[in-house]
Amino acid sequence: MSRWKCVCAYDGTEFSGWQTQPSCDAVQDVIEAALEKILKQKIRIHGSGRTDAGVHALGQVFHFDADWKHGSEKWIAAMRSLVPDAIRFESIELVDDDFHARYSAKGKRYLYRLHVSQADPFETRYMWSLRYSLDLEAMRAAGRALLGEHDFSAFAAENGSGADGENPVKKFRAFEVAEKDSEIRLIFEASGFMYKMVRSLTGALVRVGEGRLSPDAFAGILESKTRTKDVVTAPPHGLFLERVLY
Amino acid sequence: MSRWKCVCAYDGTEFSGWQTQPSCDAVQDVIEAALEKILKQKIRIHGSGRTDAGVHALGQVFHFDADWKHGSEKWIAAMRSLVPDAIRFESIELVDDDFHARYSAKGKRYLYRLHVSQADPFETRYMWSLRYSLDLEAMRAAGRALLGEHDFSAFAAENGSGADGENPVKKFRAFEVAEKDSEIRLIFEASGFMYKMVRSLTGALVRVGEGRLSPDAFAGILESKTRTKDVVTAPPHGLFLERVLY
Repeated sequence: MSRWKCVCAYDGTEFSGWQTQPSCDAVQDVIEAALEKILKQKIRIHGSGRTDAGVHALGQVFHFDADWKHGSEKWIAAMRSLVPDAIRFESIELVDDDFHARYSAKGKRYLYRLHVSQADPFETRYMWSLRYSLDLEAMRAAGRALLGEHDFSAFAAENGSGADGENPVKKFRAFEVAEKDSEIRLIFEASGFMYKMVRSLTGALVRVGEGRLSPDAFAGILESKTRTKDVVTAPPHGLFLERVLY
Repeated sequence: MSRWKCVCAYDGTEFSGWQTQPSCDAVQDVIEAALEKILKQKIRIHGSGRTDAGVHALGQVFHFDADWKHGSEKWIAAMRSLVPDAIRFESIELVDDDFHARYSAKGKRYLYRLHVSQADPFETRYMWSLRYSLDLEAMRAAGRALLGEHDFSAFAAENGSGADGENPVKKFRAFEVAEKDSEIRLIFEASGFMYKMVRSLTGALVRVGEGRLSPDAFAGILESKTRTKDVVTAPPHGLFLERVLY
């Protein structure tokens, strides 16, 4: 048995998230079903982490153990014929047996897409559409508070932070606000993210951009380690898992 | 009253086509409802022609008569706030009273997007996904038969060609097959197109690309002026009205 590391992209619109579901319509379910057809046995894949229903990925990573002697290209072609076009396999490679998609990850990079003025009508499905223009400088100022190591409990999911016992202390390496035509892109890179953390950060940062929360008050929420009503959860369809860093 | 010419793009996925419907969910209905709110009176807009349910536009053109003294930018901003993000107004300008979006048109340019190998998962909603690779040279050879003036009755809609009494004789100015990464783009430019004509041409050309119809046989269908079983109608979601030429 060899260990394989695979990178894939997906449009999350039609899936109930990454992680396997009883309804079998999660990305993981679809990929495992395809693998079973090819390898004639049940295969469990291990993702770098879950993405919620409606969240997209440009570079989700998973690993699995299997005997496959026909090379990467044939594997990708075989898999492609068995999954919907909304999933694309970018690469697959043999890795050491001690590689683990989740536990070997050194960090992750997420992208959140927003638009205020009118965007490309063929892209709006993948962005959060806002009514008011944003003060990007205020958002950048607030975002500086994220850099470095902090306890991000204030930005954990509403229904009980760290419910799965995850350490809320993360090292934030980068936060960027980029404009591209009528689109605004928020980029987040950290050692790890809790469940719904990027969407919670985005929701609060948009309030900063709208002038409803000051950059200092944003920093105060982070320090307080307590979620407030200003930490709204941004919708899933603007969020992309861009890359897993190893 | 002044006459205005407007260019707009739309993602046709969620609309029941361009032309007004009893259900009021056509692009025309949505734009007329927005105009009525702004101008406080019923306004009828005149498109360059209809697009079917699911068909997109990059540059649909319509005209209407109205008094509006606040300039183009304010008009676009006002309209934008009243229509879904799936419609974008590209430009609006004052034109002579004898301009007519449909009757002044000298031609149209359509784009049809296809993919065979795996495409960008965020673009597949806007392409026809094919199972077999295509012989693009055969498609180009077949397409040469289109150029010039012909009776296109063989590529009229299945349920009675020229049902709306439209002249089936059109002057074809350009046909191109372009490859862009894993995508294949068919470009059609002619003096006009009958209902479902581009989708019928695309369906037959794909059969040529698949090796199931020779370029000569394709030319023979055109000459026969009679639709055959090889003239399949390609699905709407790959089709874009690119530009109306005046």
